[in-house]
Amino acid sequence: MSPEGTAGDWEPSGLVTLLTDFGTQDPYVGIMKGVLYGRASRLRGIVDLGHELPPQDVPTAAFQLAHARPWFPPGTVHVCVVDPGVGSSRRILVLHDGRDVFLAPDNGVLGPLLERLQQGQEAGQGGAGGVWELDIERFGLPERSRTFHGRDVFTPAAAHLVDGLAPSQMGAALDPGDLERFSFPDFQVQQGAHGGFTGEVLLVDRFGNLITNLPGRLFDESEAWILSAAGRRLPVRGTYAEARAGEALALVDSYGLLEIAIRNGDAARELEMGRGDSVSVSPAP
Amino acid sequence: MSPEGTAGDWEPSGLVTLLTDFGTQDPYVGIMKGVLYGRASRLRGIVDLGHELPPQDVPTAAFQLAHARPWFPPGTVHVCVVDPGVGSSRRILVLHDGRDVFLAPDNGVLGPLLERLQQGQEAGQGGAGGVWELDIERFGLPERSRTFHGRDVFTPAAAHLVDGLAPSQMGAALDPGDLERFSFPDFQVQQGAHGGFTGEVLLVDRFGNLITNLPGRLFDESEAWILSAAGRRLPVRGTYAEARAGEALALVDSYGLLEIAIRNGDAARELEMGRGDSVSVSPAP
Amino acid sequence: MSPEGTAGDWEPSGLVTLLTDFGTQDPYVGIMKGVLYGRASRLRGIVDLGHELPPQDVPTAAFQLAHARPWFPPGTVHVCVVDPGVGSSRRILVLHDGRDVFLAPDNGVLGPLLERLQQGQEAGQGGAGGVWELDIERFGLPERSRTFHGRDVFTPAAAHLVDGLAPSQMGAALDPGDLERFSFPDFQVQQGAHGGFTGEVLLVDRFGNLITNLPGRLFDESEAWILSAAGRRLPVRGTYAEARAGEALALVDSYGLLEIAIRNGDAARELEMGRGDSVSVSPAP
Repeated sequence: MSPEGTAGDWEPSGLVTLLTDFGTQDPYVGIMKGVLYGRASRLRGIVDLGHELPPQDVPTAAFQLAHARPWFPPGTVHVCVVDPGVGSSRRILVLHDGRDVFLAPDNGVLGPLLERLQQGQEAGQGGAGGVWELDIERFGLPERSRTFHGRDVFTPAAAHLVDGLAPSQMGAALDPGDLERFSFPDFQVQQGAHGGFTGEVLLVDRFGNLITNLPGRLFDESEAWILSAAGRRLPVRGTYAEARAGEALALVDSYGLLEIAIRNGDAARELEMGRGDSVSVSPAP
Repeated sequence: MSPEGTAGDWEPSGLVTLLTDFGTQDPYVGIMKGVLYGRASRLRGIVDLGHELPPQDVPTAAFQLAHARPWFPPGTVHVCVVDPGVGSSRRILVLHDGRDVFLAPDNGVLGPLLERLQQGQEAGQGGAGGVWELDIERFGLPERSRTFHGRDVFTPAAAHLVDGLAPSQMGAALDPGDLERFSFPDFQVQQGAHGGFTGEVLLVDRFGNLITNLPGRLFDESEAWILSAAGRRLPVRGTYAEARAGEALALVDSYGLLEIAIRNGDAARELEMGRGDSVSVSPAP
Repeated sequence: MSPEGTAGDWEPSGLVTLLTDFGTQDPYVGIMKGVLYGRASRLRGIVDLGHELPPQDVPTAAFQLAHARPWFPPGTVHVCVVDPGVGSSRRILVLHDGRDVFLAPDNGVLGPLLERLQQGQEAGQGGAGGVWELDIERFGLPERSRTFHGRDVFTPAAAHLVDGLAPSQMGAALDPGDLERFSFPDFQVQQGAHGGFTGEVLLVDRFGNLITNLPGRLFDESEAWILSAAGRRLPVRGTYAEARAGEALALVDSYGLLEIAIRNGDAARELEMGRGDSVSVSPAP
């Protein structure tokens, strides 16, 4: 056994999460659960992290995975099947960050996790973590379609992990620096007398809230802040309830990020804003 | 321990239901389940009672909760996060009706249950039941966002209940008469020679069926009844199958309420009716 | 006990799948799960095979059921509530094929399974399999609505099966040849010098992929094949990745059937094709 990834390092919780771009009217997600129940004898539960993601939308999947996983108990297997490259020679990655295991295509969706893994390894703190190329021949089903790796490869491999197989046993070790990465854009600190920050909209949720890349910790609540975007100036508030119904505001959301919202309304539609749009925040004059 | 709510009064089934206005493409519901699995050691299962409810639609949530809960085993924890007041000083209620426990904001959604609780207490039959203000400091997560109480407050508290903590231990007792209430409108008995009843549409389901507040027990099947609404007269039938495809009819639905439907069609759209519209039913001449 | 269907022949896995045309914003599916949890003491898990199917669409339900069930462990109870005849005198079938049990209305949805059962019985290989008319009085709830048999009949009966009751004990035996059947149309072998096959589109999935009735095994990969449909000629490829973004192609899908797709696009919309449309495949000249 390699130093990183002895069997003792991986203690499964028995939970598997699924994040896919499959539709819930199609039977694909149900079939994946059938494979898991049939092959994992220590399965405690399966949680749908999200389905019907915009087809093949890697940024949204990466965001949701990164923000959801801290809320699951350690030892959870996170399966992400949002894959523009299905059927190609795309590798499938097994990433262990010392706490959880992630199964995902090498398409960038594990970007934020790979970055942290690489930083840890460079600092000599690799620990139990690592990333491996899943040995599809050994851990996939013997007969595999070319179009549905969720059923034929991801879930059979996840079942092995749930039943205690160490991630390091599932394929050849890879260098995190060699892999496809997706990174969220960084925010900028504005120069000048007044200070402030420039960022952009990362994604739009179902309520039409616009989630930015500006972390809430930037905005000291003892000061008043103003967000500028799409030619408007909005106050940064503590909660939705501090705005009137229909009023646009910015606030720190449950992801810990600054978000633009309209109380009881749809900010994306009413402000005509979307992913990639620029925002800046400055102290109130 | 207070007389109402000794630990012995609460025997959890290990089940939690979730009713929210979150979208299933967003990761919020999955995150709530992660918190539950991580914190409740005696969890048997989590059931989605409904998501993507019309945002902040208290009447629909109250209706669904009241009609779904009798079908779950006693000792189930029902979590309802449909909350126009998130982030405000809105209290969170823990209601025990002697059978099940409900966690919901003090926004009216527990109206029908509070009414029954109050009637029971006035009649001296409070039993194990009661309603308490959830002690968020003690039972929520130590660090809480201002926008996602489903994750930070509701599910951690639900986990305590699943693991056996008595609801009476979770906060200060409240008087059910002091709390926000939502009540469904009552139907009226028509005066006059012919008798009959007047009511209204409570809600519209996905098939476009119009569910009214007229209980099915009013309509003795030995008589023929005619429903009048939106300028039309429809027969009250026993089943969908007694109508021709495309024909509008009224029938007693699975909620035990009179419902307007079009066989293999969408009554709301074709009759141009919706919530609050008036209906009346009289014996056939 | 009858020779087919002794208790020993049925070993439940503890899993139940649900396939319905109910909406997930309505509480109907959650209620069915509540009934299952309340009545089945050996329940291991409930899997949503699909909801919000096109209301009362028997062909889609039959297709999904037939293709999903092999992926579940033996002993699974598959409940299918997609029923144009609810409330009528429609019988409810209990079908055991020697591996799994299916509860469904006698509306054709079990067609492919009934056909195989009949062939087996004619060949003297009935084994443990059979089909029975569910005794609703004995296995349904004592009080039943006329509109929601999923709650009042299907799930109480499924709970008995999960807890080990043999399907042969649940009603009177039926002859599979006497029951409502839905069959998928057969493909045709083209006569003539060049050979080839003619079929049709069975259904359209959420991505707009057009799934045909042409089995992939017909198309020897050592030859090149051309699919003709809607006045176009498309190449038969091995994977999506062999096409350019936006290019239409045909390929063998995860159901083992030939499918028309557009890489990163919606074939149904862009080719203006749908269920029942004719397709033919010939060797490339």
